[in-house]
Amino acid sequence: MAIANVQKPRFDAAPLIAALQELLGERCSVNPGILERHGHDESYHEAHAPDAVVFPQSTEEVAAIMRLARKHGAPVIPFGVGTSLEGHVAALEGGISIDMGRMNRVVEVNAADLDVLVEAGVTRKQLNNHLRDQGLFFPIDPGADATLGGMTATRASGTNAVRYGTMRENVLGLTIVTADGRIIKTGGRARKSAAGYDLTRLFVGSEGTLGVITEIRLRLYGIPEAIAAAVTSFPSIGDAVDTVIQVIQSGIPVARIELLDEVQMGAVNRYSKLDYAERPTLFIEFHGSERGVAEQSEQVKAIAADHGGGEFRWSVKPEERSQLWQARHDAYYAGLALKPGSRGWPTDVCVPISRLTECIVETKRDIEASGIIAPIVGHVGDGNFHTSILVHPDDPEDLRKAEAFNNRLVERALKMGGTCTGEHGIGFGKIGFLEREHGEAVGLMRLIKQTLDPENRMNPGKIFRA
Amino acid sequence: MAIANVQKPRFDAAPLIAALQELLGERCSVNPGILERHGHDESYHEAHAPDAVVFPQSTEEVAAIMRLARKHGAPVIPFGVGTSLEGHVAALEGGISIDMGRMNRVVEVNAADLDVLVEAGVTRKQLNNHLRDQGLFFPIDPGADATLGGMTATRASGTNAVRYGTMRENVLGLTIVTADGRIIKTGGRARKSAAGYDLTRLFVGSEGTLGVITEIRLRLYGIPEAIAAAVTSFPSIGDAVDTVIQVIQSGIPVARIELLDEVQMGAVNRYSKLDYAERPTLFIEFHGSERGVAEQSEQVKAIAADHGGGEFRWSVKPEERSQLWQARHDAYYAGLALKPGSRGWPTDVCVPISRLTECIVETKRDIEASGIIAPIVGHVGDGNFHTSILVHPDDPEDLRKAEAFNNRLVERALKMGGTCTGEHGIGFGKIGFLEREHGEAVGLMRLIKQTLDPENRMNPGKIFRA
Repeated sequence: MAIANVQKPRFDAAPLIAALQELLGERCSVNPGILERHGHDESYHEAHAPDAVVFPQSTEEVAAIMRLARKHGAPVIPFGVGTSLEGHVAALEGGISIDMGRMNRVVEVNAADLDVLVEAGVTRKQLNNHLRDQGLFFPIDPGADATLGGMTATRASGTNAVRYGTMRENVLGLTIVTADGRIIKTGGRARKSAAGYDLTRLFVGSEGTLGVITEIRLRLYGIPEAIAAAVTSFPSIGDAVDTVIQVIQSGIPVARIELLDEVQMGAVNRYSKLDYAERPTLFIEFHGSERGVAEQSEQVKAIAADHGGGEFRWSVKPEERSQLWQARHDAYYAGLALKPGSRGWPTDVCVPISRLTECIVETKRDIEASGIIAPIVGHVGDGNFHTSILVHPDDPEDLRKAEAFNNRLVERALKMGGTCTGEHGIGFGKIGFLEREHGEAVGLMRLIKQTLDPENRMNPGKIFRA
Repeated sequence: MAIANVQKPRFDAAPLIAALQELLGERCSVNPGILERHGHDESYHEAHAPDAVVFPQSTEEVAAIMRLARKHGAPVIPFGVGTSLEGHVAALEGGISIDMGRMNRVVEVNAADLDVLVEAGVTRKQLNNHLRDQGLFFPIDPGADATLGGMTATRASGTNAVRYGTMRENVLGLTIVTADGRIIKTGGRARKSAAGYDLTRLFVGSEGTLGVITEIRLRLYGIPEAIAAAVTSFPSIGDAVDTVIQVIQSGIPVARIELLDEVQMGAVNRYSKLDYAERPTLFIEFHGSERGVAEQSEQVKAIAADHGGGEFRWSVKPEERSQLWQARHDAYYAGLALKPGSRGWPTDVCVPISRLTECIVETKRDIEASGIIAPIVGHVGDGNFHTSILVHPDDPEDLRKAEAFNNRLVERALKMGGTCTGEHGIGFGKIGFLEREHGEAVGLMRLIKQTLDPENRMNPGKIFRA
């Protein structure tokens, strides 16, 4: 289990806190409960509370905070709602947590151009509620109701990425405050541009280590004319994954295609009081015109039938569909109930789709051999799947087994040309894997980090070792 | 007209050339014809020949060349086939042109995963010929038969981008040789990854200023079951563009939707001996299933009819379709014939789609008021259009008028939230506009340049002033 070394404080907190309180009044907090809440995310990783939490209301305030932090040599950790999974928000060296929650305005919707400008603290559900009346939506859906700032910083994706791409493809531009307190705007409103380096993409996935993202311009989509969702189960996990592979290779534009293994299905049934077959199951969603959706679903049905797929259970009404996807989104919590008192250690490999069956079948065998409980869910259309290893955080044997299993899983994925993280990011939990995966390229990443943050104050200890 | 100051040679060429000839034999050339050919692209910009041209055959050879260039303090300019349009390949300070033409192997096709690894000197037509038998294609089509290395370096797009995205969305990973001769691999084969900074996207569009791209992993697509192309004309350019806007806003997934104004149509008719109506015209292509293509084309036809569109002229046979698109691709050369002895000064703004009609109509008015000849063609589904201002490169009055017109055009696009270059890049022709467009962010770009190329030897004088 990766835990950063406990270090001596690298700066004197008291005068900085005084200055921040003068700037922000009660919007600079040292309340122990608030500090504690900002020191950890939803993962099993150890908590590290910051020295203070600030709640800016504008980009200019963020810039002022950054200048003060610089003056006092303090680390700065941007914070959304804390739903990350690799310890991203832990204040490993103390410092100031910038909670973006009060920068939650939808600044400007351009319906005609399908773009929107939001402050970083807007959550994805808030944005979609705001857009619904205009017939528009933002598709990226990592499950949690994360902030769009956090989703940008971690290059989030989730269930819809197979059709709509990830945050990488859907961020058009950013407002950033640099480590030295300058305000920079990247990208623009045009659908494409060849003007200079792609700073936008450099900050998407930078996990708060290069600057603070305060505003995001996102691409929007029209709510499809027709949406249908279906659930179908298979005799074996190999059959389910082979179905997915053939769907993707046939170019059928499914909007979502999610795998839950029989362990996960059992957990979902018990947690959400449902009666699905406890077999490897695909949750599928189709977006398009009435005719298009009908055509896609016929094609997928035929492919599933070739692989022993059972009946399609359909949901076309919005409330039925949300129920269905709620069951999918609750998978993490449903899983935890299989081992009372446990937390989930989520794995996150992503492999080329042609290797996915092999990777999942081997992993399943490994789970059984390891004596761990680890339900599988997957954004299988992208080749990405998670196991949630259930651990008691205080049980060293649990943690040892989970770590060994995860190491084997990552090694398996890398050998197949995959990645150690499809969507959760590196945080401080996967630093070793980043080097294993990218080798020499990590040196280049580090050089960029040193250039943009020479004092290593931006979320130190994440992506790279401190 | 932007011409770099002529500078004194910054390094001693003779000993470097001797060392390169020892390394490469006759694959290091100082033949005057070869030097001349490598000093300019297809634009009106002044030529600057390099001191030598090298023809490496492997990434390792590129690394050896880079180490020698570093030792001798020489600039290095990567070269594909020289079809860029902003002076990208000009050796403004002399140095070594690295012609990637002999690194033209398709290394590995993964049909099941829809990806391919190519060397940087493979051209897009070569790749598509290679892929055809497997039912696959690479969609990005900038018109010219450019190398995939050049297309990556300039973030190319072209006619298919409205459906398939640009090089930004379709490059999965790169092999790069850095300024100091290290070999770095970025990205990977998984469809998505959240592992560290997005170095791939940093190099896509970096125009040879950060390193030499030697290999590219690209996303492929299945050749659609059905393809249909149509041509239709409109009473006014506003009607044509309004049609496009409504098609895009309706979410109809057209594969191409290209505008040619009446001046361009007249030129195309004469150049390619065709008989199209000499009115503002849309060339449209549909990809999908038989049913999908039929549905899309009905929808577009209805929208066009609402805007006074004439009959649809259909081409469903492959040879008819290639003829149609050949006419579109010949537009540049067809235009030149309107003013014998002229060269084209291509403009390249891109604006949010909602402003496109306004931008094109104002630009058309400006052309008429300026007394210039400048046919309009546009990748209008993206909000991107070109005028090709016909100039005699030796006529200062022609150049003055063209420059003033282009300045007004860029200013107009920027005011509308657009960009000075949708797809051609900055080169040395648009450096001033980059600063006008991106302000403070250019400082950050420059910082990255200085970090990765501290001696400013990688294509110096491009993107930034030397």
